[in-house]
Amino acid sequence: MAEELKVFRTWSSPYALRIIWALKLKGIEEYETIFEDITNKSPLLLQYNPVHKKVPVLVHDGKPMSESLVILEYIDETWKHNPLLPQDPYERATARFWAKFGDEKLLKSVFNFLITQGKEQEEAIPQVIENLKYIEEQLKGNKFFGGETIGYTDIAFGWTANLLSVFEEVTGIKLLDEEKFPLLSAWMRNFSDVPVIKENWPPRDKLVIKFQATREKYLAAAVAGGGPK
Amino acid sequence: MAEELKVFRTWSSPYALRIIWALKLKGIEEYETIFEDITNKSPLLLQYNPVHKKVPVLVHDGKPMSESLVILEYIDETWKHNPLLPQDPYERATARFWAKFGDEKLLKSVFNFLITQGKEQEEAIPQVIENLKYIEEQLKGNKFFGGETIGYTDIAFGWTANLLSVFEEVTGIKLLDEEKFPLLSAWMRNFSDVPVIKENWPPRDKLVIKFQATREKYLAAAVAGGGPK
Repeated sequence: MAEELKVFRTWSSPYALRIIWALKLKGIEEYETIFEDITNKSPLLLQYNPVHKKVPVLVHDGKPMSESLVILEYIDETWKHNPLLPQDPYERATARFWAKFGDEKLLKSVFNFLITQGKEQEEAIPQVIENLKYIEEQLKGNKFFGGETIGYTDIAFGWTANLLSVFEEVTGIKLLDEEKFPLLSAWMRNFSDVPVIKENWPPRDKLVIKFQATREKYLAAAVAGGGPK
Repeated sequence: MAEELKVFRTWSSPYALRIIWALKLKGIEEYETIFEDITNKSPLLLQYNPVHKKVPVLVHDGKPMSESLVILEYIDETWKHNPLLPQDPYERATARFWAKFGDEKLLKSVFNFLITQGKEQEEAIPQVIENLKYIEEQLKGNKFFGGETIGYTDIAFGWTANLLSVFEEVTGIKLLDEEKFPLLSAWMRNFSDVPVIKENWPPRDKLVIKFQATREKYLAAAVAGGGPK
């Protein structure tokens, strides 16, 4: 009997993209994709992820899961071929540490850079740079975070490979100096060249428009709230 | 050759306590404990956790790790007896989901309750209650999150079993109505009765003093900043 496998995503969510990448890296092509409109979420999404009400949700044989990093571990434990996480417990801890860092520190700092201007943005930039330096350091001696092939940490950091430059375009400010970040810059190219990655990026022009609107919304709210805090 | 095992903690950190609990549940008693003073962190702590500069840090045979949930997984993968996580991938995903929820949603809402007053605190309380309801729901049919014995999710939520009532005492406001949360209330008693847990709680009177000071510091800052935002 064929397995039931469904992915709830949006066209742009970098978290949902992780699940698509992971399934494809496992060679799993037989799944149903449900594209959600976040301004009008489906009853099924709300039923499957009542806590966060967000994509991605993976449903496997009736069992719903959310939180992209949690789903990645589930995928890796359920379909054991082409492992995403390394086998050694310390390397696994390192991979999990950096994935968590990416979501809690780096992503936050980069988003803060996107939605601010003036002095506030000037203060946001060094935080992004500091966070990027940690990643540069992690890539020493490796093509990918997982070694010679992409894995869990690459998938977790994958959003940087397109969104950093989208945010640069939206703000008109260059963040990533290739001379200062040679390893990260090379990683972004190598990562984006992996067929599974290359074939599944959301359209760049649509991302630029989306994040322009995000930026404008936050800037307008900051002005309405009495100027940037 | 004996293994080198060191835990960097503070007397009060609920995150660090998770590591102590996990080691003891694994029957590992041979480790060195380094008590940090967070107002004067040791050079070793800063060297081992340069990103977050926080406890807990676990050092195993020269390999330093931080982030308590990441360390729990390392402990479980390195010493496989008395497993903390369930074996089934979906149950593992569920355990990880709720641990993450506890740190990102519940803990944040409870802390917000601790450090606010008046209208702001009145708005904070329903968020705590909503988050606690999810946990109550998870305990249906189970003594512990992991079934009949404590495991990863119990350890992750462990802080609620003492800090919720400490915060109630500090604020003078009752959060947890036992009639509305019978399962969570029973879990708190059962969890606290497990010898490894009971023997390792920080002194309650010191916690009350510590979090009274935390509350006063935040309230003073809110007033200095022009009143609660």
